[in-house]
Amino acid sequence: MDAKELITLAGEWIEPSLKKVFPEELSDDITVKASMYSLLAGGKRIRPCLMYLFGSLLGCDLNEVLPYATSLEMIHTYSLIHDDLPCMDDDDLRRGKPTCHKVYGEGIALLAGDNLLNRAYEILFKECMSGDLAKIRAASYIASKAGIEGMIGGQSIDLDSEDKTIDTDLLYELQDKKTGALLSAACMIPCFLKEASAEVASQVMEYAMHIGLLFQIKDDILDVEADPSLLGKSTGKDERDHKSTFVTLLGMEEAQSRMNGEYQGCLDNLAALESLGYDIKDLKIITEFLAERKY
Amino acid sequence: MDAKELITLAGEWIEPSLKKVFPEELSDDITVKASMYSLLAGGKRIRPCLMYLFGSLLGCDLNEVLPYATSLEMIHTYSLIHDDLPCMDDDDLRRGKPTCHKVYGEGIALLAGDNLLNRAYEILFKECMSGDLAKIRAASYIASKAGIEGMIGGQSIDLDSEDKTIDTDLLYELQDKKTGALLSAACMIPCFLKEASAEVASQVMEYAMHIGLLFQIKDDILDVEADPSLLGKSTGKDERDHKSTFVTLLGMEEAQSRMNGEYQGCLDNLAALESLGYDIKDLKIITEFLAERKY
Repeated sequence: MDAKELITLAGEWIEPSLKKVFPEELSDDITVKASMYSLLAGGKRIRPCLMYLFGSLLGCDLNEVLPYATSLEMIHTYSLIHDDLPCMDDDDLRRGKPTCHKVYGEGIALLAGDNLLNRAYEILFKECMSGDLAKIRAASYIASKAGIEGMIGGQSIDLDSEDKTIDTDLLYELQDKKTGALLSAACMIPCFLKEASAEVASQVMEYAMHIGLLFQIKDDILDVEADPSLLGKSTGKDERDHKSTFVTLLGMEEAQSRMNGEYQGCLDNLAALESLGYDIKDLKIITEFLAERKY
Repeated sequence: MDAKELITLAGEWIEPSLKKVFPEELSDDITVKASMYSLLAGGKRIRPCLMYLFGSLLGCDLNEVLPYATSLEMIHTYSLIHDDLPCMDDDDLRRGKPTCHKVYGEGIALLAGDNLLNRAYEILFKECMSGDLAKIRAASYIASKAGIEGMIGGQSIDLDSEDKTIDTDLLYELQDKKTGALLSAACMIPCFLKEASAEVASQVMEYAMHIGLLFQIKDDILDVEADPSLLGKSTGKDERDHKSTFVTLLGMEEAQSRMNGEYQGCLDNLAALESLGYDIKDLKIITEFLAERKY
C-alpha cells in the first residue's frame, strides 16, 4: 500500500465513528451542527492514522483503539475552531472551507469547540467504565497531553509571544507542546492499551517527538512554499502576523535541514522497533509522506 | 450554624483545593494566571457547598468528595469566562470584578476557559486511576452534565433563541440544562461515591431539580430587583438584551409564586430524606438562604 491508500484505510476506520459522536435526536441543535461541520470538514486525519498504524503494529484490537482516536480528533478539531476565532488567529479558511465562526457566528463556534472538547471526555469516561486500568491510563494520558502541560500550554506560549521575537529554544518548547502533544498521544495510546514494554514505549515516544517536530517544521515551510489551493488554507500568514517560526528564525535552508534531521530520527526509531520484531513498513510510508507532503 | 457559617465552612474546604489545581512551576504562565484570576474571584461557591452538605449528609469521606467539587467549580468557572466574552453575553463585570477578558484580553480568556475545562477532567481522570467504579461513574456523570445533554445544551438553546421570544416550556428546558445540570451534579456526586440506594438518590435528584429552578428563577428576579453593588454584576441586562426569563415571560408575581413552589418542592424532598433517617438541618438552612438571597 502507498501513503494515499493507508490514509484512505484509516479514514474508513475513523469517519463512521466521528459521524456518531452525538445522538441522532440532537442533530437539529445548532451547536451540534456547528461541531459536526468542523469535525467532518475533512483534513488528513493524521492523528487517527498514526493511532491506527501503531495500533496495528502492536497488535491491538482496533475496536478498542477507535474511541481514543475519535476523542483525539475531536480535541484536535476543537482546538482548530478556537484557534481560528477572531480573538486568536482570525482565519477565514480551514481545510479549504469557511471556518466554523464564518458559517455559524462566533458565539456558536466558541460553544461548538467547548462541545467537542467536553464530548471527547464523555466518550473517554465511557471507556473507563469497565474499570480496566490500561484504558483509564490511556484516557488520562490524552487529557494531560491536551491540557496546560501539553497543547494548551503551547497555545499559551504562542499567544503570549505574539508580535515578539522568541528564541529557538522557546519555539521548540512551543511546538513540542502545541502540535507535538496530541501527535504523541496518537502514537502512544496503543502502547497504553496493549501495555507495551518500556523498551517499546520509549521508541514510540521518541518517534512521536520527532514526527511532531517534522510535522511542524514542514507546516512552517509550507506556509511559505505551498500552493494555497492545495493546502486548503491561506499561506504567508506567518510573515503577515510577524510569527516566529522555524523558517523565520532559522531561514529556509536550516529549517529544511532540521526537518531532515527529525525525519532521520523517525527512521531510527522505526528501525529500533523493527529490530524488536515489529512490522514497520506502513509507518515508514506514512513518515515519508509527512516529510514530503505538499499540503 | 446559620447559612453564612455553612458557606464559610464549605469555602474553607474548597478554596485551598482550588488554589492548587495547577503546579507551582506553571504559575507564571499567562493562561494559568488568567484561569486562577477567575477561579479565585470569589462567588458564593454554591455548587461546592451543596456537594459538601450532601457529602456530609450521606456520611462520605469529604476528602474523596473534594476533587469532584473542585472540578465542578472549575467547569462552572470556565462556562462563566466563555459566557462573558463579547461574542456571547459581553459582560464587563463578574462577581464584582472586571471579567477575565477585560483583564487578560479575549484570546487568553478563551484559552483560560479551555484550560479550566480540560484541567477539571485531568483531575477527574486521576480519581479514576484507582479503578474504583463508584469514582469512575461519578466522574462520568459530571462530564455528561457539563456537555451537550446538560449545560452546553442549555447554552446552545440560549444562544439560538437570542432576540426571539421563547415559550415557557423551552425556558424550563433551557434553564434545567444551563443552570440545573451542574447543580444536580453537585447534589448527586455524593450519592455516586457512597453508592446510595435508589430511594435516596431519587430524592436527592428531585431536590436538585427543584433547587436548580429555584436558583434560576431567583436569578431572574434579582436581575430586576437587586442592588448591583450587592450582586457583583450589572442588573437589568435581561430587559436590555430582550432575553426571555421567568420574569419577562410570566411577570414578577407568577415568577415569585413558581419560585415558592420550587422551594416547597425542595423542602418536601428534604423531609423525605429526614424520614429515611438523615440529618437535613444544614441543607434546610442553605435552601432557605438560596430562596431569600439578595445577591
